[in-house]
Amino acid sequence: MRFSSVSLFFLDGSLCGRKGTVMQKKVILDVDTGIDDALGIVLAVRSRQLDILGITTVSGNVSLAKATENTCKILELLDAAERIPVIRGADRPLFRPAVFEHRVHGEDGLGGALSAMQLEKTAADGFAPDFMIASAVRFPGEVTLVMTGPLTNLAHAVRKDPGLVHRVKEVIFMGGAVQSFGNVTPTAEYNMYVDPEAAKIVMHAGFRSLTLVGLDVTRRALLTEEHIGQLAGSPLGDYVRQSTADYMKRYYERYGVRACAMHDPLAVGVAINRDLVTTGYYYVDVETRSDLCDGQTVCDFQNRLHKQPNVHVCLEVDTGAFFRLFIRALRSI
Amino acid sequence: MRFSSVSLFFLDGSLCGRKGTVMQKKVILDVDTGIDDALGIVLAVRSRQLDILGITTVSGNVSLAKATENTCKILELLDAAERIPVIRGADRPLFRPAVFEHRVHGEDGLGGALSAMQLEKTAADGFAPDFMIASAVRFPGEVTLVMTGPLTNLAHAVRKDPGLVHRVKEVIFMGGAVQSFGNVTPTAEYNMYVDPEAAKIVMHAGFRSLTLVGLDVTRRALLTEEHIGQLAGSPLGDYVRQSTADYMKRYYERYGVRACAMHDPLAVGVAINRDLVTTGYYYVDVETRSDLCDGQTVCDFQNRLHKQPNVHVCLEVDTGAFFRLFIRALRSI
Amino acid sequence: MRFSSVSLFFLDGSLCGRKGTVMQKKVILDVDTGIDDALGIVLAVRSRQLDILGITTVSGNVSLAKATENTCKILELLDAAERIPVIRGADRPLFRPAVFEHRVHGEDGLGGALSAMQLEKTAADGFAPDFMIASAVRFPGEVTLVMTGPLTNLAHAVRKDPGLVHRVKEVIFMGGAVQSFGNVTPTAEYNMYVDPEAAKIVMHAGFRSLTLVGLDVTRRALLTEEHIGQLAGSPLGDYVRQSTADYMKRYYERYGVRACAMHDPLAVGVAINRDLVTTGYYYVDVETRSDLCDGQTVCDFQNRLHKQPNVHVCLEVDTGAFFRLFIRALRSI
Amino acid sequence: MRFSSVSLFFLDGSLCGRKGTVMQKKVILDVDTGIDDALGIVLAVRSRQLDILGITTVSGNVSLAKATENTCKILELLDAAERIPVIRGADRPLFRPAVFEHRVHGEDGLGGALSAMQLEKTAADGFAPDFMIASAVRFPGEVTLVMTGPLTNLAHAVRKDPGLVHRVKEVIFMGGAVQSFGNVTPTAEYNMYVDPEAAKIVMHAGFRSLTLVGLDVTRRALLTEEHIGQLAGSPLGDYVRQSTADYMKRYYERYGVRACAMHDPLAVGVAINRDLVTTGYYYVDVETRSDLCDGQTVCDFQNRLHKQPNVHVCLEVDTGAFFRLFIRALRSI
Repeated sequence: MRFSSVSLFFLDGSLCGRKGTVMQKKVILDVDTGIDDALGIVLAVRSRQLDILGITTVSGNVSLAKATENTCKILELLDAAERIPVIRGADRPLFRPAVFEHRVHGEDGLGGALSAMQLEKTAADGFAPDFMIASAVRFPGEVTLVMTGPLTNLAHAVRKDPGLVHRVKEVIFMGGAVQSFGNVTPTAEYNMYVDPEAAKIVMHAGFRSLTLVGLDVTRRALLTEEHIGQLAGSPLGDYVRQSTADYMKRYYERYGVRACAMHDPLAVGVAINRDLVTTGYYYVDVETRSDLCDGQTVCDFQNRLHKQPNVHVCLEVDTGAFFRLFIRALRSI
Repeated sequence: MRFSSVSLFFLDGSLCGRKGTVMQKKVILDVDTGIDDALGIVLAVRSRQLDILGITTVSGNVSLAKATENTCKILELLDAAERIPVIRGADRPLFRPAVFEHRVHGEDGLGGALSAMQLEKTAADGFAPDFMIASAVRFPGEVTLVMTGPLTNLAHAVRKDPGLVHRVKEVIFMGGAVQSFGNVTPTAEYNMYVDPEAAKIVMHAGFRSLTLVGLDVTRRALLTEEHIGQLAGSPLGDYVRQSTADYMKRYYERYGVRACAMHDPLAVGVAINRDLVTTGYYYVDVETRSDLCDGQTVCDFQNRLHKQPNVHVCLEVDTGAFFRLFIRALRSI
Repeated sequence: MRFSSVSLFFLDGSLCGRKGTVMQKKVILDVDTGIDDALGIVLAVRSRQLDILGITTVSGNVSLAKATENTCKILELLDAAERIPVIRGADRPLFRPAVFEHRVHGEDGLGGALSAMQLEKTAADGFAPDFMIASAVRFPGEVTLVMTGPLTNLAHAVRKDPGLVHRVKEVIFMGGAVQSFGNVTPTAEYNMYVDPEAAKIVMHAGFRSLTLVGLDVTRRALLTEEHIGQLAGSPLGDYVRQSTADYMKRYYERYGVRACAMHDPLAVGVAINRDLVTTGYYYVDVETRSDLCDGQTVCDFQNRLHKQPNVHVCLEVDTGAFFRLFIRALRSI
Repeated sequence: MRFSSVSLFFLDGSLCGRKGTVMQKKVILDVDTGIDDALGIVLAVRSRQLDILGITTVSGNVSLAKATENTCKILELLDAAERIPVIRGADRPLFRPAVFEHRVHGEDGLGGALSAMQLEKTAADGFAPDFMIASAVRFPGEVTLVMTGPLTNLAHAVRKDPGLVHRVKEVIFMGGAVQSFGNVTPTAEYNMYVDPEAAKIVMHAGFRSLTLVGLDVTRRALLTEEHIGQLAGSPLGDYVRQSTADYMKRYYERYGVRACAMHDPLAVGVAINRDLVTTGYYYVDVETRSDLCDGQTVCDFQNRLHKQPNVHVCLEVDTGAFFRLFIRALRSI
């Protein structure tokens, strides 16, 4: 355990140790950095409640190269480039061709927000799954994996090191939808749709604790113009406004609401403070063999299939508490 | 149009003609008579607002032979055996083996309620799909098909006579679930699960109007002991109590509620009075190629697939109004 | 049994009765009349060894309407229009959209050969599957079904009348390939590919005898220019030359051989004289759930699946004997 | 390039350099060491025409642990344990559960032949896919991968290092069947059946040269009792006789021939001398979504799918030449 000397009681009391120190949770963030992944990284870094061992990148919303570049840019923006390594992962899904989401995240993946930045940071050597494996060996039982892209890297890690599932503390992933409809097809959420085989491997791998932060809750974590107003004047206020502008516009056109969903930041939020969500423990499987339903996360609420539960499924979210955490973290310096 | 001389204003005003006569809606009921199908038939006959051209049977909850026998028994119980013909249909699903539901409906399919009855009525000659085709030719634009079993018979009819879809007035079917979970697998409702190929054929056949009365609404149409109490002393009170006893017990064990869902009666209710439900018009498809999701009715609420709507999907139900209709009909003589 | 007074010993002795009369085999031909179906009809009629109860049509190479029209034209060409009824069947496959083969059979389905004919004959009333059912009831144990298109009509018949399988004498169908490659996809033959669900239903229906006349043998039954030369001067010589001209050209372009395969006539030939082929009795199934292999006929030569045999699979053909039969029949008057 | 000082002109002249030296082909063998894999290793080592960089193991016929142990045993038997490293790979298929073949290869995977051996050698550190990647980086354009188990390790390597396909010289794999039937299901060969997703990844990865050594040719490479007799008295004669005893018995029971197929040795043979086989260059795909046909290698002989060729498919084999190579290598000291 590493202790941070910064007092964090004003952000969230749940992780405070004695005398104002905080026992930080060791995490690896795995990202396909588009707009909301970026805000997830911002939250993770600025909350100061997570000991970020590294950020691993994956093909998803954007290519692996862009996801890596965007991640480095965000870390530079946060002045965290030197202490947090970025490690490249899979350049495509386990079994399928890549499916990018430039319509949502813009050509660069950040809504154009950091296009002028002169980037110095580059990715560290190594392969994301190997970094996960090595980290879990180094800190057995301590590492939380926060996955906000397709689960490709983790599937590779599981297959290379079958012992990983016992050494990782827990996995929290943004993905899927168990009662709500999908955001790519009628039933599938993007991260699951893009690499359903990886998702299926991860779900059945035998991890101690798997938490699904799906559209059922992330769609309720809506960043509004009021939230953005609260960030005005803070160092990151302009970045947030700029990067989400098109994203909010798109959301407005589809749903008639001036807002955008903080999918990935909520997964980070759950890593910081689990009490933000209410979960149920169910058997969840992923469809991989259907043109119509591929990537659907099927949750067996009634135990029709007589299988053991494997996933803690987020069912409710305390939106107010989440945005208090989010705004405070982003306003901090 | 046939006119009934019985005044029905006390049941439901929506179909009243001049001078106390009623223009009855011509219907064919298609049934796999288990417990709730039986109550659907009872409602259809006793409401006196439907001109029942015939009742067609299909393999489903029980075998075709039992479904046919049970249907004949119900009609004898209702003193309607002479005027309403029963016509046998498909003895198995279009493409798959049969899957019966004796755990729910009992060995005889009626919860044992009419096991002692000496049955005189037998099925008429003919094949259910042919009966549907001939009826639609005889009364073009007038026939409503109320389907409360797997859609096998209608799929056969559509394939034999492609013109049928233009001659039938509308199809109302109990089946599927678009937001709720399934009752066979995590995602599939029984009627769709048993014959998803037939369901898919029917949904894409081009009918003028298709209404899906799914678990989303039928699970809210719960027959309670209070309802059964209201039927006490009426001619059918004993039958209802007896036939639903095990069904309610099972429901209690699963959900902790002393009640049972009136799946099929609600579909009949919608045929009598469409105002009982609120619908949305969406593209709906049926999964047929997945071990995990076969029989799932996928409703494209957000038009992700860019297809034309094909199904009126029941989203809300006025439960109070439905049970007023149901209880009055069953108490009538 | 009907007896023909024409002595046929010069064609094929195998069916000869006493005193020069022949006990003709009762058959129904089921066709999607393209070029080789047409020649199958010609062989069936001219061989005089089959008692053709009727010819049923189905959507396949061409639309149901064209298949029906072409069949009527061929019967007029053969002066058989009055005694052989034509009955329309399914206008599309059981579960899938139609896939026509105009590239092979020409826009009209007959390579343009009878485009100028003024057609008088029209289809009889009725539906092909009903005709099959009624014929099998009328002549129990006597009817041979010779299927040269997709198996749609027979699947419908089986589903409507489960007893059909016991009343039909045998089914001989052109379709599939068990060792050879396909003619639509790498593994699928056209008739199976177009309606694999129907094929699967027929194969598992429980018929007394099912014979698969697949590409393994029909590709060896090549009509050559020499054969056409042998027909020169005979009444049908011009028709055969004209209808096969483009077909042969196409075959030449693909295989470098001036010839064309007599797929459907060989199935008729097997109905006339089973000794033309050598068969093995195996378990055969049809793929229906794969984008890559749909319609493949999988023959379990080694009994890997531990299933009971269901199909007599043609493995060898006596090409010489077949063409002697074919040429003699077509040269007869 | 490494040069061997041993003159090999008496085995096979094709690789001879000047003055009796031989430019050895650098290979990595990837094995799931059962009976015939073991003989493949024996051939590879004793032929002295291959520079074996290492032997990687994979879950397949037997577990990863047994495959690794068996491989070490064989190398000790061959006195090659010190110079050839063994590197462990994937402990299960990419996406599916393992399927072992103990019925064929015995409980230990070697037909009991080396059960008494005191094993000293252990696997080297590392992961097979990483070893493949590193070897290809070290010897760009020089490494031949000879795969005789499921293609799991190579699929992992391809996904981790997309540049691998350009750096590997060629891939020769035992697996599949393009005209012959399967040996697990009617259409699937074991290595493809066990990990069809891996096979599909490898086939479409873009390797410079992929050669499929399938059942079409390996079934003709039958080791007979005569061959075993030719090995009598040589150091490996007893091992070969003992390890193949049950395997031959099993083959005899199934096919009535006292022999057994040298599947994996033939793939090694092709690596030593390509002239042993005749190949065709075709588009080949692997079925992954069908219960009936999973693992089938579909070869598009007629280019029905209009795809570019990707696999050199062995169609013919010079059995005599192969067994001359095999026997001489095994009799050498």
